[in-house]
Amino acid sequence: MTSLEDYMARNVILVDEALDRYLPPESEQPQSLHRAMRYSVFSDGKRLRPVMAIMSAEACGGTAQQVMPAACALEMIHTYSLIHDDLPAIDNDDYRRGKPTSHKVFGQAMAILAGDALLTHAFHILTEEPLPNLREILRTLTKGVGIGGMVSGQVVDVESERQDPDLNKVEYIHLRKTAAPFAAAAKLGALATDAPAEKVRALENYGRDFGLAFQIVDDILNEVGDTAKTGKPTGTDRSLGKQTYPAAVGIDKSKQAARDYADKAREHLASLGYEGRFLRELADFIVSRDR
Amino acid sequence: MTSLEDYMARNVILVDEALDRYLPPESEQPQSLHRAMRYSVFSDGKRLRPVMAIMSAEACGGTAQQVMPAACALEMIHTYSLIHDDLPAIDNDDYRRGKPTSHKVFGQAMAILAGDALLTHAFHILTEEPLPNLREILRTLTKGVGIGGMVSGQVVDVESERQDPDLNKVEYIHLRKTAAPFAAAAKLGALATDAPAEKVRALENYGRDFGLAFQIVDDILNEVGDTAKTGKPTGTDRSLGKQTYPAAVGIDKSKQAARDYADKAREHLASLGYEGRFLRELADFIVSRDR
Repeated sequence: MTSLEDYMARNVILVDEALDRYLPPESEQPQSLHRAMRYSVFSDGKRLRPVMAIMSAEACGGTAQQVMPAACALEMIHTYSLIHDDLPAIDNDDYRRGKPTSHKVFGQAMAILAGDALLTHAFHILTEEPLPNLREILRTLTKGVGIGGMVSGQVVDVESERQDPDLNKVEYIHLRKTAAPFAAAAKLGALATDAPAEKVRALENYGRDFGLAFQIVDDILNEVGDTAKTGKPTGTDRSLGKQTYPAAVGIDKSKQAARDYADKAREHLASLGYEGRFLRELADFIVSRDR
Repeated sequence: MTSLEDYMARNVILVDEALDRYLPPESEQPQSLHRAMRYSVFSDGKRLRPVMAIMSAEACGGTAQQVMPAACALEMIHTYSLIHDDLPAIDNDDYRRGKPTSHKVFGQAMAILAGDALLTHAFHILTEEPLPNLREILRTLTKGVGIGGMVSGQVVDVESERQDPDLNKVEYIHLRKTAAPFAAAAKLGALATDAPAEKVRALENYGRDFGLAFQIVDDILNEVGDTAKTGKPTGTDRSLGKQTYPAAVGIDKSKQAARDYADKAREHLASLGYEGRFLRELADFIVSRDR
């Protein structure tokens, strides 16, 4: 029986290979742009969003290849959001995953443009070959990462810095900034494999509650994590006065909330039966992770 | 007989109304984001790209409404590119069209995020209703404004500052940064109205050569234009050491090159006959403009 770890490792390799195919080589003009795009895309990310999309496609009886364009689009979008978030005008982060951030290596102008290029290219790769449900796939992506989701979450995140911790605000931010893209990831796997509406909904709900659990754990690790494992400095949220779950309710209640959301995520998978096993295991894994 | 001026004025109104419908109201959360998006979208732009898309659709026997989602998507993308280009890290412009630029009004973090939101929302509005040729429309947009077009042009533009003027470099930049989005605009009109492949190609070629003429005139106006008319300070390209047509070949040869590209643009419309009259007039208008 394949373990979750082996299954994820296989999918990370598939995603990395596909991203390499979808991105122009560094030898192509303008080289500096393609180098900057690749630097951030291939920086040891966990590939959780595209891997979830693949898990979801396979849980619906489809294949990794069917969802690969949408999965890689989501990863490119995730990468652009990190590049822009790290800019001095926003979170001003010099390191991510133990490596200097894009603007530290390529300068701010290139970091802005490489982010723009990745966001645009994400939608471009959806057109490389015919996809079923293209309109619904495009809508799911743009809703998850646009003003209905990720960007709005990021705006409120930035605007709420140094305000009193407020659980309502934390949940507003988590729902849009993190849960919406994960909901999109899981939904994309169902759409790309032409799954019935009931599965599309169940997986979207799974992705959302998974994302909420994931972000609470992220907040906890930022507060009390081991830098050697996370590759990120600890306490940056606190020093920026960020709205986080631990700031609002403390570490213990945050751990319980993460556990509760992971349980809710699992419950959405009831109708999937055995096919949903990796998604269930992933929900458990995510709340026990230390990096 | 309708004049070009009246025809364009009518279409600008249609585009403005559609953009207003496609953008969330300022009253919706997060208000600051929607305010920043609307501030730049409704800042007295000429709407040349969406109007060209409409002209192209009507020249193919279709309607403005058929191409409106794609036309407005292109205008949102154009707007995001201006917001990001104006940032201190890139062109550092404090004014555009006589108004303070986005980062001067809302701060750099919001300007970056409002640009990201507009780029994402552009693709979202393509999904509001079923479109014919959605895949080809999405591909045309992402090619025109992504690494195959606008973003690459902008990268080379920024990287070539303060280098010796070089006509090859100028043409590389113009072709990608300006001509590619105009080629997309004209092509979108044909695709959205399901025009035959021959018209799609002719209009794409028209848009490209129009864009080349347009950008040369833009370069000329930056060098010798009347600030009261253009709404932009004069000489900024020169002080940034930008690669421009006038810097490479002088004002007189630049005027001739603009005229030549406008003529080439007109020639692509031969097969359109009377239906292509406004596009022909627009090519003439663009080389004689003073703002």
